Amino acid sequence: MILYFSPLACSMATRIAFYEAGVDAAYVQVDTKKKRTETGVDFLTINPLGQVPALATDDGLTITENAAILQYVADRFPAARLAPPPESAERVRLHQWLCFIGTELHKSLFVALLDAKAPADARAYALEKETSRLGLLEAHLAGREFLLERYSVADAYLVTILNWSAVTPVNLSRFPAVKAYAARLRSRPAIARAFAVEIALYEKERTRELRT
Amino acid sequence: MILYFSPLACSMATRIAFYEAGVDAAYVQVDTKKKRTETGVDFLTINPLGQVPALATDDGLTITENAAILQYVADRFPAARLAPPPESAERVRLHQWLCFIGTELHKSLFVALLDAKAPADARAYALEKETSRLGLLEAHLAGREFLLERYSVADAYLVTILNWSAVTPVNLSRFPAVKAYAARLRSRPAIARAFAVEIALYEKERTRELRT
Repeated sequence: MILYFSPLACSMATRIAFYEAGVDAAYVQVDTKKKRTETGVDFLTINPLGQVPALATDDGLTITENAAILQYVADRFPAARLAPPPESAERVRLHQWLCFIGTELHKSLFVALLDAKAPADARAYALEKETSRLGLLEAHLAGREFLLERYSVADAYLVTILNWSAVTPVNLSRFPAVKAYAARLRSRPAIARAFAVEIALYEKERTRELRT
Repeated sequence: MILYFSPLACSMATRIAFYEAGVDAAYVQVDTKKKRTETGVDFLTINPLGQVPALATDDGLTITENAAILQYVADRFPAARLAPPPESAERVRLHQWLCFIGTELHKSLFVALLDAKAPADARAYALEKETSRLGLLEAHLAGREFLLERYSVADAYLVTILNWSAVTPVNLSRFPAVKAYAARLRSRPAIARAFAVEIALYEKERTRELRT
């Protein structure tokens, strides 16, 4: 299985899932600006949108979109218990949280804030969503360990996204339960390992960019 | 089962799914500006984000987020065949398309364009995504009847979203396969019926707003 990723992008959630499941996947880094893989392949031939993650499975499928890839990995390695059983009430909640993280946090709140080329008004428009979206999360996470009854791929996705607050005006200190959740999750071995690997790759990428 | 909806909003996809499955649901209209239901209930007590759809199930669950609700309805009424079987390769594709529609079309492209209060630069920033997102859809739908091998709740969601092009600068004429798909789907009985009902409710709502 090959995961096409970019350091600290939302593709890190799938790396975390692989680490949790003890799966030996191949990781191919993508330059999402030049749309090329580190192996020299035009990434648009793999995902026409040029976005990570994309997952090439052993059965020859290429899957895009985080919610689809994360559920695929969870269902492919059920022993790791990364998702509630299909058709259970908890799986419905997994769908709900994956959708919320993808639409309300990732796309509505963070995308413009992470994009250096986004106009100031587009950034301000995105930031207007901080209070309601993170407020909902704050109310949900107060007194809870995970988004669902137990750890799932939704947590891997959320901890990846919350990390972006470090380089945007999103202020987690206003949401203490969310902040504590993110810190707690980052001490999980699979998550700590994924951050260590991707922070090192991210810094290497930045150094390369500064040189060119 | 109660569907909380607003006319022609993305909640219409669930109405279509109910019509397809022949399910007698209750429909409660929400004033998404005042955050009140037509029955006088504070809608924020049902969905703290104040967004439709929300679905109250017969088992006492309240589900939010379109991708979660649509899969719940499909799985609850399997005879209607509105989703591929759980854990099949086609279900992975369903996850992928529901995620694409929710993140890339609904949130990234349409939300700012539908929001009269969005600043001009935020609207322009959203519209930059038209070519790549609808271009991907154009390439996929050329020569295909549905998003998946057969009709699914993803089509119900997509036809609902594409209708918004009528009141935004999104120009479907640039994407003939997408335009033909939308027109074709709108002749399906369940979809035609849902549009007829919600267009009438939408016009009634607008008349009421103009009077007040």
